[in-house]
Amino acid sequence: MGSDDYRFMAEAINEAKKSLKEGGIPIGAVLVEEGKVVGRGHNRLLQNNSTILHGEMDCIENAGRLKGENYQKSTLYTTLSPCTMCSGAIILYNIHRVVIGENTTLIGPEELLMENGVEVKVMGIDECREILEKYIEENPQTWESELERVGYHTD
Amino acid sequence: MGSDDYRFMAEAINEAKKSLKEGGIPIGAVLVEEGKVVGRGHNRLLQNNSTILHGEMDCIENAGRLKGENYQKSTLYTTLSPCTMCSGAIILYNIHRVVIGENTTLIGPEELLMENGVEVKVMGIDECREILEKYIEENPQTWESELERVGYHTD
Repeated sequence: MGSDDYRFMAEAINEAKKSLKEGGIPIGAVLVEEGKVVGRGHNRLLQNNSTILHGEMDCIENAGRLKGENYQKSTLYTTLSPCTMCSGAIILYNIHRVVIGENTTLIGPEELLMENGVEVKVMGIDECREILEKYIEENPQTWESELERVGYHTD
Repeated sequence: MGSDDYRFMAEAINEAKKSLKEGGIPIGAVLVEEGKVVGRGHNRLLQNNSTILHGEMDCIENAGRLKGENYQKSTLYTTLSPCTMCSGAIILYNIHRVVIGENTTLIGPEELLMENGVEVKVMGIDECREILEKYIEENPQTWESELERVGYHTD
């Protein structure tokens, strides 16, 4: 189980890197059902001029219209702690487990996930943090405007 | 203010009717900032083979990448009580007020919205209920499979 988590988190990191190559914010996710990747996605806010395509949302969308029983057996791997919107989607579809690469750059409502019966595991993977921190360092204004959009104030 | 709510809810109902004409589920939404519609959307689950394009999500996406201060001054009008995913998006963007056409066909986590400082008003509009109930009567299997997908059991 532990080694599977590293393997699938590596796939989520690959998605983050795809976003970076497209000029986007490097956050990625994969949805895994019984040891098989059934959806992949990455943050597309910049690429698609979107407000809803966070990595997790893009991943859930790309997985297609699964049955309830499939979502309920699935684990979502994401390089960054899911925000309120993505957590809401996870709860809506009863995805039973969420594995988070890191939650120090930003942290979402992990307790809301847990209160709703979602198993949450934070791996604390340096690579997830480093790829995003490097992006923020190199694109401070883009990042700042993303934070402003959701009401974060860093000053 | 009261008459404005009826006027903008009528616009959300128009969006629900657009969905119906496209063969979709009749749920609609508009985002209004200081008396002006800045986004429109409707449920596109069937039309776009989507899992994330509920009416509210489509509306928020179509509004484009607004500034935080714009969302914070906005009201979202939706014909049906927002689900957990849509409520999460509303909370993420700090949309300060949500006006709901009806919450008897389905009810979302309205208390979560309120706990997060969102003003919630339920209008109880028969037309919102009737258009969706008629759709459900005429498309019971489609509706049932949508409910199954999110883990609702009606039996």
